[in-house]
Amino acid sequence: MLATTRTLLEGIKSHKRECLARAITLIESSNREHQHQATLLLQQLAQHQGGHAKSLRLGIAGPPGAGKSTFIEQLGLRLIKKDHRVAVIPVDPSSHISGGSILGDKTRMEQLTRSSNSYIRASPTRGVLGGIAEHTSDVISLCESAGYDVVVVESVGLGQSEVDIDSAVDMLLLLVPPGGGDSLQATKKGIMEAADLVLVNKADGDLLNSAKHTKADYAGAMQFVRRKNINWQPKVLMMSAYTGFNLDKVEEEIFGFHKLMLDNGSLIEKRTTQSKQWTLGQFRRLLTETVESDNKWDPHVQELFEEIDRGRMTPRAAASRLLGKLDLKVL
Amino acid sequence: MLATTRTLLEGIKSHKRECLARAITLIESSNREHQHQATLLLQQLAQHQGGHAKSLRLGIAGPPGAGKSTFIEQLGLRLIKKDHRVAVIPVDPSSHISGGSILGDKTRMEQLTRSSNSYIRASPTRGVLGGIAEHTSDVISLCESAGYDVVVVESVGLGQSEVDIDSAVDMLLLLVPPGGGDSLQATKKGIMEAADLVLVNKADGDLLNSAKHTKADYAGAMQFVRRKNINWQPKVLMMSAYTGFNLDKVEEEIFGFHKLMLDNGSLIEKRTTQSKQWTLGQFRRLLTETVESDNKWDPHVQELFEEIDRGRMTPRAAASRLLGKLDLKVL
Repeated sequence: MLATTRTLLEGIKSHKRECLARAITLIESSNREHQHQATLLLQQLAQHQGGHAKSLRLGIAGPPGAGKSTFIEQLGLRLIKKDHRVAVIPVDPSSHISGGSILGDKTRMEQLTRSSNSYIRASPTRGVLGGIAEHTSDVISLCESAGYDVVVVESVGLGQSEVDIDSAVDMLLLLVPPGGGDSLQATKKGIMEAADLVLVNKADGDLLNSAKHTKADYAGAMQFVRRKNINWQPKVLMMSAYTGFNLDKVEEEIFGFHKLMLDNGSLIEKRTTQSKQWTLGQFRRLLTETVESDNKWDPHVQELFEEIDRGRMTPRAAASRLLGKLDLKVL
Repeated sequence: MLATTRTLLEGIKSHKRECLARAITLIESSNREHQHQATLLLQQLAQHQGGHAKSLRLGIAGPPGAGKSTFIEQLGLRLIKKDHRVAVIPVDPSSHISGGSILGDKTRMEQLTRSSNSYIRASPTRGVLGGIAEHTSDVISLCESAGYDVVVVESVGLGQSEVDIDSAVDMLLLLVPPGGGDSLQATKKGIMEAADLVLVNKADGDLLNSAKHTKADYAGAMQFVRRKNINWQPKVLMMSAYTGFNLDKVEEEIFGFHKLMLDNGSLIEKRTTQSKQWTLGQFRRLLTETVESDNKWDPHVQELFEEIDRGRMTPRAAASRLLGKLDLKVL
């Protein structure tokens, strides 16, 4: 049985980890009642706290093998030592068939997992298309309500998800491994434009030289990329999550950017814009669900599907016909 | 000015390349009239031909650097020599900010581009989220109407797109580069489950040994992956698009699979299922567009956005309120 909204509300406000976990499960549920309860819970928490204006929402994107987990773990441990509380949320819209990488998540961020001041949300394995990314914004908000002032959103997949993550965070870091032109060629303009800071990881040992070249490549390419923020020129830094090289500099950049955004009002502005985007996204999902859960809907779909079975009906024409089965008015 | 539907219809039926290009532009347009014309055109072509039962729709997925372009070019050239006509469609939902990779597409598949029996659709650079993948199924259908009997859909992005591509093709190839555990770790279960054939490319020169290990890794991992098709055990093959090594074997596997699907009826079954999925996807898009283009809609959205500006309204609650502004009935 699921806990009452009141129990969850109180539990989250008093930073109980198991209540946070339960609330996230509620948010990700496709059950109607759960969804209703989740909406209520989020609205009550929002009224109670009125935003989380001082939290830091950090997105981490980068190709597989860039060392994202190691970086997040090392950064997280450093921040916890400075009395921050750190939540890590993996986002992976690509894992909708059976979720997770072949080798699994078990050995990831072992040290960070053990800290009582961190919360690491395991990768969900449900089979709902886009089900994870859809709720990221709500999950971040819950983590903040539960007292985590740094929320790290990690792009576990690649591609679309990277740019999407920027719609949920204050600052986006692009982490790349050393490696000649290949690394740069594989990186899309979209993610370069969205990045607030580019980190060339693994700048240690034999890879140091290669990292220097990669840094120069990215620094050169960044000049041709449209600026995301007129007040901020994204830097390209070398670092090593493994040896700790330059991590203090990385931290400085992150908090420098965060302070700038807080001071000039662009943080609240970005978050407001994000809330509007998320509202429209959630509305579209609700709209579709409302139509498709109507008792009278399935017979219409079945009728058209029979025509598709007989061939000669294109999906596009079929979709137009389906729309004709709705009486739709804006009030 | 755009051509008339009749001109396009005749042009496509007589395999005119510029008519195909124009029709694809029409399909990808967000203009209402263009959309209507595109629907009409597709429906008329479908009635004229009644499906493309003998065509081969081949999806190619794999990480950046796997050598997808080189492979497609070499395979395409071989097939053209055997009197096939080959169309290549890149699909990249991740490039929606400004499209394409940093280094661009110009040097890709130069030889194949020069053949009069190939059609390579350039990567679109429009900024519409998901705008490309959304129309893939229609673009494939157009290419087939224009006489291309092999349509290769290339996943240019990574992540979500890979698995999505399987919803548009008959057979999905996963191309991977040689490279120890890293390669396998970066590969998601989802794509492994969706693949009908795994190709370890670059099995030549210094990389041959590494390719052998990678092949063994994937062959091992495939045993733990849920079978997609009870009649087909996906093989893992080494090959080299560069030297041509094993390309005949790859071709044999592809056409063996295609023949099996044609013979046992699973090709038509898969395509029918795909048409149903695309119908629902297109319907969802139409539904949202219909609501959001209504004159009375914007004021409702603006009203809620003002509440969001004042804080204390979560996107989830705001979306519920928006749904309340609709009078929606299924007939």
